[in-house]
Amino acid sequence: MQTKKLKIGIVGGTGYTGVELLRLLAIHPNAELFAITSRGEAGQPVADMFPSLRSYVDLPFVDPAEADLSACDVVFFATPNGIAMQQARELLAKGVRVIDLAADFRIKDVSVWEKWYGMAHACPELIADAVYGLPELNREKIRHARLLANPGCYPTAVQLGFMPLLKAGVVDQLSLIADAKSGASGAGRKAEVHTLFAEAGDNFKAYGVGGHRHLPEISQGLSQMAGQLAGLTFVPHLMPLIRGIHATLYAKLTKPCDLQQLFEQTYADERFVDVLPRGSHPETRSVRASNQCRIAVHQPQGGDTVVVLSVIDNLVKGAAGQAVQNMNIMFDLPENAGLEVVPLLP
Amino acid sequence: MQTKKLKIGIVGGTGYTGVELLRLLAIHPNAELFAITSRGEAGQPVADMFPSLRSYVDLPFVDPAEADLSACDVVFFATPNGIAMQQARELLAKGVRVIDLAADFRIKDVSVWEKWYGMAHACPELIADAVYGLPELNREKIRHARLLANPGCYPTAVQLGFMPLLKAGVVDQLSLIADAKSGASGAGRKAEVHTLFAEAGDNFKAYGVGGHRHLPEISQGLSQMAGQLAGLTFVPHLMPLIRGIHATLYAKLTKPCDLQQLFEQTYADERFVDVLPRGSHPETRSVRASNQCRIAVHQPQGGDTVVVLSVIDNLVKGAAGQAVQNMNIMFDLPENAGLEVVPLLP
Amino acid sequence: MQTKKLKIGIVGGTGYTGVELLRLLAIHPNAELFAITSRGEAGQPVADMFPSLRSYVDLPFVDPAEADLSACDVVFFATPNGIAMQQARELLAKGVRVIDLAADFRIKDVSVWEKWYGMAHACPELIADAVYGLPELNREKIRHARLLANPGCYPTAVQLGFMPLLKAGVVDQLSLIADAKSGASGAGRKAEVHTLFAEAGDNFKAYGVGGHRHLPEISQGLSQMAGQLAGLTFVPHLMPLIRGIHATLYAKLTKPCDLQQLFEQTYADERFVDVLPRGSHPETRSVRASNQCRIAVHQPQGGDTVVVLSVIDNLVKGAAGQAVQNMNIMFDLPENAGLEVVPLLP
Amino acid sequence: MQTKKLKIGIVGGTGYTGVELLRLLAIHPNAELFAITSRGEAGQPVADMFPSLRSYVDLPFVDPAEADLSACDVVFFATPNGIAMQQARELLAKGVRVIDLAADFRIKDVSVWEKWYGMAHACPELIADAVYGLPELNREKIRHARLLANPGCYPTAVQLGFMPLLKAGVVDQLSLIADAKSGASGAGRKAEVHTLFAEAGDNFKAYGVGGHRHLPEISQGLSQMAGQLAGLTFVPHLMPLIRGIHATLYAKLTKPCDLQQLFEQTYADERFVDVLPRGSHPETRSVRASNQCRIAVHQPQGGDTVVVLSVIDNLVKGAAGQAVQNMNIMFDLPENAGLEVVPLLP
Repeated sequence: MQTKKLKIGIVGGTGYTGVELLRLLAIHPNAELFAITSRGEAGQPVADMFPSLRSYVDLPFVDPAEADLSACDVVFFATPNGIAMQQARELLAKGVRVIDLAADFRIKDVSVWEKWYGMAHACPELIADAVYGLPELNREKIRHARLLANPGCYPTAVQLGFMPLLKAGVVDQLSLIADAKSGASGAGRKAEVHTLFAEAGDNFKAYGVGGHRHLPEISQGLSQMAGQLAGLTFVPHLMPLIRGIHATLYAKLTKPCDLQQLFEQTYADERFVDVLPRGSHPETRSVRASNQCRIAVHQPQGGDTVVVLSVIDNLVKGAAGQAVQNMNIMFDLPENAGLEVVPLLP
Repeated sequence: MQTKKLKIGIVGGTGYTGVELLRLLAIHPNAELFAITSRGEAGQPVADMFPSLRSYVDLPFVDPAEADLSACDVVFFATPNGIAMQQARELLAKGVRVIDLAADFRIKDVSVWEKWYGMAHACPELIADAVYGLPELNREKIRHARLLANPGCYPTAVQLGFMPLLKAGVVDQLSLIADAKSGASGAGRKAEVHTLFAEAGDNFKAYGVGGHRHLPEISQGLSQMAGQLAGLTFVPHLMPLIRGIHATLYAKLTKPCDLQQLFEQTYADERFVDVLPRGSHPETRSVRASNQCRIAVHQPQGGDTVVVLSVIDNLVKGAAGQAVQNMNIMFDLPENAGLEVVPLLP
Repeated sequence: MQTKKLKIGIVGGTGYTGVELLRLLAIHPNAELFAITSRGEAGQPVADMFPSLRSYVDLPFVDPAEADLSACDVVFFATPNGIAMQQARELLAKGVRVIDLAADFRIKDVSVWEKWYGMAHACPELIADAVYGLPELNREKIRHARLLANPGCYPTAVQLGFMPLLKAGVVDQLSLIADAKSGASGAGRKAEVHTLFAEAGDNFKAYGVGGHRHLPEISQGLSQMAGQLAGLTFVPHLMPLIRGIHATLYAKLTKPCDLQQLFEQTYADERFVDVLPRGSHPETRSVRASNQCRIAVHQPQGGDTVVVLSVIDNLVKGAAGQAVQNMNIMFDLPENAGLEVVPLLP
Repeated sequence: MQTKKLKIGIVGGTGYTGVELLRLLAIHPNAELFAITSRGEAGQPVADMFPSLRSYVDLPFVDPAEADLSACDVVFFATPNGIAMQQARELLAKGVRVIDLAADFRIKDVSVWEKWYGMAHACPELIADAVYGLPELNREKIRHARLLANPGCYPTAVQLGFMPLLKAGVVDQLSLIADAKSGASGAGRKAEVHTLFAEAGDNFKAYGVGGHRHLPEISQGLSQMAGQLAGLTFVPHLMPLIRGIHATLYAKLTKPCDLQQLFEQTYADERFVDVLPRGSHPETRSVRASNQCRIAVHQPQGGDTVVVLSVIDNLVKGAAGQAVQNMNIMFDLPENAGLEVVPLLP
């Protein structure tokens, strides 16, 4: 039986989340790439810019003005922040579903969004309907979403790590700490000095300790899980590796709890969250190229500090893979369609 | 229609070629993993050692003495040199096909083999029947092979790069130069000081300039292509990256030739050799995780030196992927079955 | 004026702390390398193993049994744990000062030491006299030390980061968190699978969350600073870089405090601790090859969580450089003698 | 005795060659940093941009228009190509010596220069007097140079590797091959996509096979050594490491020769060229941070192909270190003044 394939549009196909969507969708059994836009590269074959896609993607980039995106079933925005909000209204009006991999629709409080992202929101009226696409938290809403806000990379790793604790109410939700580390692809495919190989290689640093845009997004999710305001200290770091986020999470236990059991039960039915055995230390490479999140939970020296280790591939579960997972849910496809990629190790 | 699946045995599943076979075969539509042996790790679930395989490989390692490999359709040897030659005779006698990813059956002249590998050959009578598994050179023989000698990683990249030139007879076959660079996974998953991260990282060196085991293997293949004795200078280097071989090949042109056309025609029907457009420079990452070889040919300043750039993933086209490709040919499956993995970039 | 040079012995010169001592001492104006021992490499010129030392170190390794270490002014032990404790008594009896870069004399409570290091202590009677060589904490005692216990790499970065807070008594000393990351050279120059380039490269993981040998060492120091028992959660991680430790420290503020001023005053006279301006994020490479520790202190969102960022080169301030600094203090030399190396950037 | 220190000006202090000059000159016993210019960063303390220089460099960047460079003894241009040629005339007229680390004065034939660099030369009349600063080739001229053209990084490694062979006339000078590999710092500290960590990391590629600006520079030097026109095929590659060039050189032997002896004799008196013992393979890290060039020569299988392995740190012997070496020669200082840095290993 041959399912009719979804017609896919991708706005902004020249960044890392764009090429990663192409990697996944090129061989997705239910997807057909219809249009990939780029203002700067219009006319150039996509595979000329990304030779890894030779024989898999034959399309050229097309100018956004000339792409008939309204003919698509779903359009992914793999663009900088502030683009999707300008185009979503029109596409939705034409019955096209929209999945935004940027931050335009992630935060419910528009004033908070505008403060952190430094611009006025172009269509605040859509925010309420937008669904935050963390399937493990919001799966039922995602099924009916027309406009999907795909979570950020750090927020995915951090929220999945804290969720069992907060839903169970076993930790102090006001003193959470997330010490998170990201590979360099998380900074995107923009020419910048600080992410040059000779700058970021053989080097490690924290950044944004005073405040990072992912903080309000994470806090919003943690508060939803806890059912009350959560307080988070979030310290991101840049690692000298390409793909991967490692979140090391700290919380204070407020009541006795079999943590291993709690985590295993919470995620027992989740295809893309893997709770490792007691005493494990997940490696970022164990999820490289895959949509998996792997988690281990520890209680060092039996004290009251819980330590959660959570790893994802920032471009897959932290971006394009989760977007495809959301598409699958939205279109009633098997949730893992096109996502059964065995992680690349070594 | 459901094809009956091939029963697969893997001898020596704890090294990089072993885990790479598992990555590919775990989702191969025509393969069923039957037994994975390891003397040292018998009883341990494979996925405990390689968490990347969780949910894909449920088998434990089994002791070689207890594995019923004769029940397999095909057995892969992902072992050090010198193991397959001790077990191949018995398996073949029982009708099991054998694919050796090590070097035991690659070299036709047993005295040459014994000199370079420093041991007596345990079953020299099988060497003549063994087929050297470079599909682009030997496809027809591979179809009928019972014992397949899977090429080395350097030999694959170098031979595919020189083949068009030598078959066409347009270069001096006596003064070939292969300046080849390999990622660290090429050295295998053995604990050794010189491949520690703190030794091999942020570092680059040549090695084995005086003589490397892949030299006679490559020379044998080049001579077959040229129809006469070929002379090669081979300089391998260790690069600070995990996967990838980049071979930079030099030859002296002896007659005028449209090199681009020659290469394109030679590989026009090859699924796994991709000749890039004029002026290209293939990157190792453009084939990462895939069975592709990408090649570009240059004639700098229009002189008589031909420069060929050839890249592969040493663990895929240079080892496990090519072994699966050979299996597909041997069992009359589509040659690309299980091998349509889009390269991982970035 | 020519100072008489100190005669230096190094026991165990083949590991990373050994070669780093050689790098620093080879051009130290007041040091003369007298003997470098290695059981396995006796007779081999040191510079054959470490070509970086060609023209700087002419000595061969000498067998420990034949080295006349009693003729030295000071002997450094750059050995695995458990060696120095067997030889220290005899050397001290002959008037030789001993600096142990391993852990034998770091922990005052011998039963704690024996539990974490899994062996009986060979000379417990010396532990009380051994001085813990963190100059910023114990400078006066170091001046008179005969037996010096050089701190571990993590302990150096973590203790220097917490010290101002604990001495001032402005944080809850019972709920300290140290999320620490180390480069691969911290694991030493031993052949092990998990630190191979192809394992540790492009990868990040925590390890030892359940308990790490540096935990009791750090806790002892923090308790000394606080004047009461300190409680620490310590999570070490392995980074894909060669040199560098980045400690991200979290503490709960218990009274108002100008943190920047506190840190600057604490370290105002310290040559090797550099407090960065408000809002800074020290990079590991900013101290690469040097004996510097750079520290920044943050109070995110003005809340009650203090975040301290502390970076060192694990082989210099975290090992050999601090050992030389201690030697300088012990022998009344300028504390920075031989240590004015400008960090290597990029 | 206190020598009067040279007053140093650096034009363009924000790139890698600039910060490397600062690393070396900050502790050079005969140098005093007088002015470091940058149009974009004027007013900012140098050490704010490069924290590695804290406590070593107190100067701010100064606007070129306001810097009194004529008060300097020597001015280094660590600028893009095309800047030094605009300012050299005026400085020289005022008696200031000029050392250009860019390419403006390297090529004697101005039409060749203009073709490869794509601009008109601003002061062709100075080219003849400019001295090409490869000390091992031109030391005597360097002593008297007023305008010094500091060699490129690839040209240094390649020329030093070929020099013994060409001066002795023992190879075919028309069929030389240089397969050269450079670390990412060789591309400079410019924001560009292809040198981002996520692009250049875990990746290897050739580039510029059709023609690279260093080709005419190298050819000019090789021809000078050979006393006749030399023919070179030059293939540069980008390696995933920060510092280091590895040149693998191939030449055809035309007469019998003890190669090891030839190389050792050629460089017997050179402080910064180290010929390794027979059978060696120099590593790039063996010269990291130092002004050393290490060379090994091989004759594989006793054939007529000579293989030379030559490594340098591209920022030191390939740029700033060689510039300081040239300064030392020009001002009659010890040639190694300020350059006795032990290489950083690991």
